[in-house]
Formats: sequence, structure tokens, C-alpha cells
Amino acid sequence: MPAIAYVNGKFSLIEKAVVSVEDRGFQLGDGVYEVLRTYNGRLHAIEAHLRRLFRSLAAIELKHHFTAARLERLMREAVRRSGYRDALVYLQVTRGATKRMKEFPKGVPPTLVITARSLELSSRAARRRGVRIMTAKDVRWLRCDVKSVCLLPNVLAANKAKAAGCYEALFIAPDGTLTECASANIFIVKHGVVITPPKSANILAGITREEVIALARKHRIPLKERSITLKQLFAADEVFLTGTTTEVLPVVRVDNHRIANGKPGPVTQRLYELFLEHVG
Amino acid sequence: MPAIAYVNGKFSLIEKAVVSVEDRGFQLGDGVYEVLRTYNGRLHAIEAHLRRLFRSLAAIELKHHFTAARLERLMREAVRRSGYRDALVYLQVTRGATKRMKEFPKGVPPTLVITARSLELSSRAARRRGVRIMTAKDVRWLRCDVKSVCLLPNVLAANKAKAAGCYEALFIAPDGTLTECASANIFIVKHGVVITPPKSANILAGITREEVIALARKHRIPLKERSITLKQLFAADEVFLTGTTTEVLPVVRVDNHRIANGKPGPVTQRLYELFLEHVG
Repeated sequence: MPAIAYVNGKFSLIEKAVVSVEDRGFQLGDGVYEVLRTYNGRLHAIEAHLRRLFRSLAAIELKHHFTAARLERLMREAVRRSGYRDALVYLQVTRGATKRMKEFPKGVPPTLVITARSLELSSRAARRRGVRIMTAKDVRWLRCDVKSVCLLPNVLAANKAKAAGCYEALFIAPDGTLTECASANIFIVKHGVVITPPKSANILAGITREEVIALARKHRIPLKERSITLKQLFAADEVFLTGTTTEVLPVVRVDNHRIANGKPGPVTQRLYELFLEHVG
Repeated sequence: MPAIAYVNGKFSLIEKAVVSVEDRGFQLGDGVYEVLRTYNGRLHAIEAHLRRLFRSLAAIELKHHFTAARLERLMREAVRRSGYRDALVYLQVTRGATKRMKEFPKGVPPTLVITARSLELSSRAARRRGVRIMTAKDVRWLRCDVKSVCLLPNVLAANKAKAAGCYEALFIAPDGTLTECASANIFIVKHGVVITPPKSANILAGITREEVIALARKHRIPLKERSITLKQLFAADEVFLTGTTTEVLPVVRVDNHRIANGKPGPVTQRLYELFLEHVG
């Protein structure tokens, strides 16, 4: 089955899908994106992803005429054409293609790219045993609440983590508190309370993060949104990550520190099961 | 005369030049760039620009086989094909096109794009009268010494500045000192001493900045590299910007503050003349 791309009105095989070398996404990082996945052939949390996309577009003042209905239809069509039941959908909007200038160009339509590919999930073994992550200094810009394509710091940290055999890189702010991972949000469990850093300009409001918070509240699992120090992380009873493809994934090692007994914990497992029920 | 692009081995009109929608420059900001210009038909400071490009590539660990000689030949060829005597050359290298992943892909060749366009200079009137600039909070990442394409914060600040009738946006660090503008370096003159912030991880080492420093030293104009507060900026005798297309440009107003008597000063004028001699 093929990977499919939609670019400004046309579907094609992904190998044939191109944008101008003067697209502002390519030359200036002047764009935002979303990543979605299907469960049982249906795009999950599409309203939440589109709400966040429109928030990102508004935050960077990118003028457009996209409607949620149209973007939803195009994403569904991309999935249908790809033929994948388990699909990963990527959607990117940029401020269009024109002669390079830093200020916003006038009268230039935005670029819309949607791709649909086969979804690759974390291995069952990783989920059963838990994963290792490593910490990295958070050198990113101060608007990480905007899901922009300026991801070079995430790329560099994620690569360092993979090279060290780790699943993720966890960013540590200058004040010593955790922000988030290169592609996932972070949670700890201590004395039965689930804790995750509160939303701020330094954290992307993850869709799965929100779903897990809602599930914990619904099932009366104590949960607090408050900042977490590195020391508190190392002393946690459980640590887990959330994300669209990560779902709810136990962490058993951070740098050279083993978390508790080095095995995935019961609260993480419970939340993962609740999450599977929720998406099922 | 046409604007020309070179992409991975092929020259074309810029309108026909494309990259994959899965280029890591487009999806992840995973690339670096340089902007050069010609004087009298010849590319200026090409060695300095290529040295900086190779530094940027090394900083983001982008493996490549480009040599300075080859890149120089390609840029010259792009200028020749464009036919412009006054040309603006843009060169970008990304970590190639492949299925989206944050970590570095294996075995994927980098993407090389070079464009040559007509050069647009600052108006003579702006140069004679001096320009206005506005300050902006520096929310950029902490590796601005790397000339990466993750320029969204620069785009947002530059657009705000243009909308307010200003030539540039000047970034102010959280500690209240100046870093640089969205596309230029900043200098002040006080009691005959030229002052510019020292190189750091928050400042790109501008080629024109280096040339102006060298010219000042050569002509025994006192110059210091040290941090500048906003208060010192407002109280300066002269303020000017440097950059590849900006050259040496007087600033006469910052936000609502007039600099000295609101006219370009003699040290700025002297350095501009020395710069013109140097490039001539």
C-alpha cells in the first residue's frame, strides 16, 4: 500500500509530492503542524487536533480560509487513499511560497500538506518492560505551546537520545524543572498521585496528555498539574510518557537512575488500560 | 532576467524548483543557510560565509561531502545564469528528505538549494535619514549562533516591526541586554567608542559585524565588544545596524526614543564609507 500526500489541492504518491524551494516552511520554519493516528481505521481525537491547529495558526497570525470540516474531509480522504487501517496522518500549514522575506508576504495563499502513512507502534516489549529516557537541557524557544515546525532542538535532543539507546529526550528548563520530551509529555506518580507539569508557554498541550488527565479525573485517580524537579523525578514511584503514537508508555530509567524497582508500575498500567478502552 | 535555483544537481527557474514535502527542512527546520550578495558582480566575503556554513553544519552534526570549492562554483554559476550583476544568493542545506522522524535518518543525502535573485537595497533616503527600529522580547532558542532555518520567532518579530513602520526588530534578552536584530547585528557609539554585544550562543556572528570590527580596529576607531543595556541604547550618541544587505545603516529612533539629535552620526557615516571602500 502506498504512502499518500495531499498538497494544495492535489493527491499523489508521497514520493511525487513537492513544495517550492521558496516555501516559507522550508526557508523560515514559518508553519505549524499536527500528527494524528487512526484507531480501528478512524482518525482519533480529530476535533481536539484541529482545535489545536487553529490555535497554532492564530498564535503565528497565519491567515487562512481552512475550515475544520474541509481539513477533516481531506485527512479522511488521505487515509482512504493510503488504504492503511493503522495510519499516521501528518498535516502542515505554512505561510506559503514567495520570494524570501522575514515579514509576512501579502496576497500569498498558505501551503497545506497532508500525508498518510503506515503507523509504526512502539514494540510490545518496550511497553511491557518500560523504556529508558535521557535528560537534555531545554534550549528551545519560549513559545513551545505553539506546535511550530521549528523543531531543530527537538531533532538534536531526540537524536542524542536514540544514539544512547533511549526512547526519548526529556527537556529540563534552566530552573531545574521538567518541561516535556522531544515528542511526548511527561508524568510521574508519587504516593498514588499522578503529577504532570502544568500547561505553560514551555509545554505543548498534548492531546493524549489531556485525555489521560480527563481519564484520571473520571476514574478518581488523584492527579495534580504542578512543576516537577529532577530530584522528584528520580524519586518517583512511577514515570510515564504520553503522546499520539507513544500512547501511555512506562519509563523505568532516566539517565543512570532506575525509577523505583525498575519495572512499570500499576498506576501507569491502569491509565494505559483506561486509555485503550477510551480509544477502542 | 530570471531568478535561478539549483537543487541537488540541477539548475532551473526558481518557479520550477521544488523539494519533497518530506524534506527535513520543510517538516522539522532541520537545516542551515547563508545569504550572500555580490558587489560589482562578484560574491562578497564568500570564504567567511562558507566557513560559517561549515560551522553551522558541524554544530547540528549534519554529515555532508560538500567542499568550499564546489559550493563556491555552484553559487557563481547561479549568479552567472541569473544574469544579475547585483545578485542576492541564498544557500540552504538540510538533512535530506525521508519519512518523518526526529532522530537523524541513516543513508539519506543532504538537500542543497541555492537561489540567485535580483538584489534589493535599502533606499538611499532610509540611509540618509536613518531608520526606526522597535524592541522585541528575545524568545528565540539558546543556540542563535547557529544559522538555522528555524526562524519563526524572527519572522514574527520582523513582521511586527514592519507593520509598525520600523526597519527591524531588536531582540532584548531576559536580562535586559540587547542581543541582535531579526536579520542584523546592533552597534552603538558612546563618547566616540563603538560598542557591540560580544559573540555568544544568543548572537549570530554576522559577517558584516566582523568586517566592521576589523575596519574599526584598522582605522583606530575605539571599539569594544561588551553587553549593552536598553538604557545605554537609548542614551547612545549613535546607533547602527550591520548585515549583508543592511550594510552599515544608521538608526535614529528606537521605539519611542529618539537617539541623540535624531540624525545619523559621524562615526556611523565614517564606518559606512570605510565599508564601501572595503567592498568596492
